[in-house]
Amino acid sequence: MALQNQSFNRPGWPRNPVTPYLGATPFAQGKSRGIKVYSLTNYTFGTKEPMYEKDHSVQERFVRLRKEYDKFGMRRYVDGVLLVHEHKMVHVLLLQLGNTFFKLPGGELNEGEDEVEGLKRLLHECLGRAAATPDEWAVDEVVSNWWRPNFEPPLYPYLPAHCTKPKEHRQMFLVPLADKAMFNVPKNYKLVAAPLFELYDNSQGYGPVIANLPAALSRFNFVHS
Amino acid sequence: MALQNQSFNRPGWPRNPVTPYLGATPFAQGKSRGIKVYSLTNYTFGTKEPMYEKDHSVQERFVRLRKEYDKFGMRRYVDGVLLVHEHKMVHVLLLQLGNTFFKLPGGELNEGEDEVEGLKRLLHECLGRAAATPDEWAVDEVVSNWWRPNFEPPLYPYLPAHCTKPKEHRQMFLVPLADKAMFNVPKNYKLVAAPLFELYDNSQGYGPVIANLPAALSRFNFVHS
Repeated sequence: MALQNQSFNRPGWPRNPVTPYLGATPFAQGKSRGIKVYSLTNYTFGTKEPMYEKDHSVQERFVRLRKEYDKFGMRRYVDGVLLVHEHKMVHVLLLQLGNTFFKLPGGELNEGEDEVEGLKRLLHECLGRAAATPDEWAVDEVVSNWWRPNFEPPLYPYLPAHCTKPKEHRQMFLVPLADKAMFNVPKNYKLVAAPLFELYDNSQGYGPVIANLPAALSRFNFVHS
Repeated sequence: MALQNQSFNRPGWPRNPVTPYLGATPFAQGKSRGIKVYSLTNYTFGTKEPMYEKDHSVQERFVRLRKEYDKFGMRRYVDGVLLVHEHKMVHVLLLQLGNTFFKLPGGELNEGEDEVEGLKRLLHECLGRAAATPDEWAVDEVVSNWWRPNFEPPLYPYLPAHCTKPKEHRQMFLVPLADKAMFNVPKNYKLVAAPLFELYDNSQGYGPVIANLPAALSRFNFVHS
């Protein structure tokens, strides 16, 4: 980037710092953004047809990832972070498959699909009512980004050194919930609300993406309604 | 909170979701905010008088925390997250004391002191040039919040259950750097630039607050200048 005249050749901090940030919107400087979360009891849960994983084994998963990478390039995966509270403690909604597998509602984007539109489609598939549409979901700020450098399980919250061609990019978005809503959960899953203290520092139980959510969410000021 | 008429008695997602967020500024929905980071080589480093820790042992630290808690209430601690890049990889600036202790530049707020003003004062004390003033520093978004529930080492990125009187609140803020600057580092410290991959998942080396920075920072889209 070209050096900016106003600070070139001047040692130390510029008296009026040049704005080193991109993007047009103003941000809450020095303040934690307030986020309303509602009680879990505000929400009701129904069931719907099972939702099957595309891959039946970890091995199959990476075979398909490799095949699709050759065809379409990097996989783009989006997740929704849906928050509620119980006894004033923030909980994250997770889909549980079997006894030990937990995932955020979300999934793979189609080729060329917009992240926000794709996440709305996937949230509708994961949790929506048949009578509803993807547009009833809202997508807010990015919570975190993770990258898969190789056709292997490890994911990192940064692009690792010398990795110019990541195989998968995962993005977590805050999904604001209305004060009341009904979710329809695929029969083969359970929807559970996991408190932050259960997830924190618990990569073994939830994987690194979910275990790091408490740290990534800590910047918000949660207001319990 | 009173139920809002527009969604009361209506099952499912409201067609026009009520805005469940507080705060007046618009946020970048569905987009990672771009943040410019400059090369470490853009910055120069001098030294200045030593900066001594207020406590000479962990035990002393908690004795003072307890004493000050009784007098002033919860301690408020603020840190600055200063980012640079080396070979296009984001690094966090850390103050190193001895061989194994690392901290972000920052410190304790005075009674009644504003977070942003206090952090500027502390950054000036930690890294500023004698000829400069605290106002040459800028403070941007909150990166994370941590709480200490007891007069003990553990910190958490949420307020733990049943903890109504935390003993310390730590806040990490993004501190934008100009494209060029000079830092003056207290003689008894070294200023080091730690890459995100060194910090990630490394609570043992850096403590949980710093080790969780890569996850908390992953929401940004870093642009290397």
